[in-house]
Amino acid sequence: MDPSAYPRRLDAAAGRLADLDIDALVIPPSPDLAYLAGYAPMPLPRPTVLIVTPSAPATLVVPTLERPLAAACPAAAALEIIDWRDGTDPYRALSAHLAGSRRVAAGDRMWAVHLLALQALEPARRWSSAAAVTGPLRARKDPEEVAALRRAARGADAALAELLGGSIRGRTERAVAADLASLLVSHGHETAEFTIVASGPNAASPHHEPTDRTIEPGDALVLDFGGMVDGYHSDITRTVSIGEPGTDVAAVHEVVATAHAAAHATIRPGVAIEEIDAAARAVITDAGFGERFIHRTGHGIGLEVHEPPYAVAGDRTVLEPGMTFSVEPGIYLDGRFGVRIEDIVAVTDDGVELLNDAPRALVAAG
Amino acid sequence: MDPSAYPRRLDAAAGRLADLDIDALVIPPSPDLAYLAGYAPMPLPRPTVLIVTPSAPATLVVPTLERPLAAACPAAAALEIIDWRDGTDPYRALSAHLAGSRRVAAGDRMWAVHLLALQALEPARRWSSAAAVTGPLRARKDPEEVAALRRAARGADAALAELLGGSIRGRTERAVAADLASLLVSHGHETAEFTIVASGPNAASPHHEPTDRTIEPGDALVLDFGGMVDGYHSDITRTVSIGEPGTDVAAVHEVVATAHAAAHATIRPGVAIEEIDAAARAVITDAGFGERFIHRTGHGIGLEVHEPPYAVAGDRTVLEPGMTFSVEPGIYLDGRFGVRIEDIVAVTDDGVELLNDAPRALVAAG
Repeated sequence: MDPSAYPRRLDAAAGRLADLDIDALVIPPSPDLAYLAGYAPMPLPRPTVLIVTPSAPATLVVPTLERPLAAACPAAAALEIIDWRDGTDPYRALSAHLAGSRRVAAGDRMWAVHLLALQALEPARRWSSAAAVTGPLRARKDPEEVAALRRAARGADAALAELLGGSIRGRTERAVAADLASLLVSHGHETAEFTIVASGPNAASPHHEPTDRTIEPGDALVLDFGGMVDGYHSDITRTVSIGEPGTDVAAVHEVVATAHAAAHATIRPGVAIEEIDAAARAVITDAGFGERFIHRTGHGIGLEVHEPPYAVAGDRTVLEPGMTFSVEPGIYLDGRFGVRIEDIVAVTDDGVELLNDAPRALVAAG
Repeated sequence: MDPSAYPRRLDAAAGRLADLDIDALVIPPSPDLAYLAGYAPMPLPRPTVLIVTPSAPATLVVPTLERPLAAACPAAAALEIIDWRDGTDPYRALSAHLAGSRRVAAGDRMWAVHLLALQALEPARRWSSAAAVTGPLRARKDPEEVAALRRAARGADAALAELLGGSIRGRTERAVAADLASLLVSHGHETAEFTIVASGPNAASPHHEPTDRTIEPGDALVLDFGGMVDGYHSDITRTVSIGEPGTDVAAVHEVVATAHAAAHATIRPGVAIEEIDAAARAVITDAGFGERFIHRTGHGIGLEVHEPPYAVAGDRTVLEPGMTFSVEPGIYLDGRFGVRIEDIVAVTDDGVELLNDAPRALVAAG
């Protein structure tokens, strides 16, 4: 990321604080901190917190032993860095920097142990979620971010193609999941983060964890996996058939593919994201599977694999160019099988770009 | 882990709630949840929460799409499982299960977004940290847990031995860190979680992140790394010299080794953990480096790499058999070099067991 992005993002966050009448933003190690300061230490019981206010320069409060790390972060020139030493009370140090702040927004991933300690020091202070501040900023990706998401999506596509080019039947879900994890890395990912390999009846569980079940001819096989490229996530799902698909699997796959296409056709600037869910759900409900589409149609993606906005009834976020999210309708038939198709998309100036380009048709894998 | 451990741990947590006059414990996906229920889904914006009360059976509230996953967890028979569906308000569902609870303890790693939403629904409720409930239970490991930590420690020892058997000089910190990560996996770790490789002046930064700096003859090299075996962590540090050490590095290493031995000699049941810090700090202070020992002497370790208790002034936890923690004094000379030596230990019935057995003497690596 171009280091000049960070001062610009810190300014934008400060501007939103002023608009929302919030006195301070406190951000722990999290995707918000990576976004605002390019700083990504491990979240630990020792608190690290970035404090942004509408006017003063941003302050990064860190454990003494991580001061050199913080001082080397790409936003360091725009930050005042304060450290606290083991054996002293970090919350008092932090709270001193919040003096006079009546309304404070806490980063969504701040650990309760840190939030509760800060709340206890100043019970009259009112806390809210920082998502109101950072969510809309992070939702509109700049071109450099979309490019990273595109590289991640293409890497996942390539991992899938290589997996499907080999042999799957007769192997265990766990072995195929391990293959997917290393294929993600060999196709440019820094890390693999999740590898759902769900075969036969296990595919009816959307977040199934790979088991020692052997993948058999006739199984529907859901492959849902992703990881990180330059800090940005991939997340793709394809459902394949081991050998020729049965008529049930083929029919359900056709419904899901039609729902996916209907959702995709809805995407353009100005549309509320809940309309995408409605479009997919209408197809699946009309086909008689409404009760078996047991999750929303999609989630924002970027520095987090799941982040706002969400393609779900009630999320009225209006799509803007640069927003990136998943489109992933599914149908789950308990005890039998499941089908899901997922791509990552980016809203463009006048429509939508598919970041994944793996084939969506039901393939018979070997 | 023997599945009978989970009902026993849930009962113990319920018992502590009664003792502490807390009405409910709410635990998100976290090491606490793995400890109490053997359940370890990815923490996500969709809330998953285990609710434990002094009397009723424990309740696990999960997103509908993860219900099959939850129903398969090893503690499932001891749990009531409730699910909430995308598009409904999970916090109202959760709060309904907390009706009548005035004092609630939140798991330390619960995300602020979830805690703030629950707090907003019932502003009169008083929240505290679940560490008071689960911390003392988790701190005393049972023999099966100590065995997992021993396997993890031995795997880290073996990774280090293999690394030092090869060639290091002339390679970058980043390349050596990647080697350590794959050596951890090849020596029985499920994952490598951190690999600090800090050479020359970089070794003065305790949590240094590996760079493209080439490791040169004469460098002190701090290697601090770990990962997970069967859910339990390894964490070892050795400082080696690339080629023959200079007299400064040798002298500082000798002080740190003496501090390490003094700390280790203090460990036995009945001693307050802060005494271990005092023993190490006295040696380093007497040698004139007190100001350069910029962190505590150790941290508990188990399902988390850093967990209570802590070897730091002010932590008066009295050692009991089964407690496991790091002993890791260090000295950091800005712009020059740093030295740290770290082992994991387990308190026994009458003393202490070193779980690591890698040599602690300063070695000249190639």
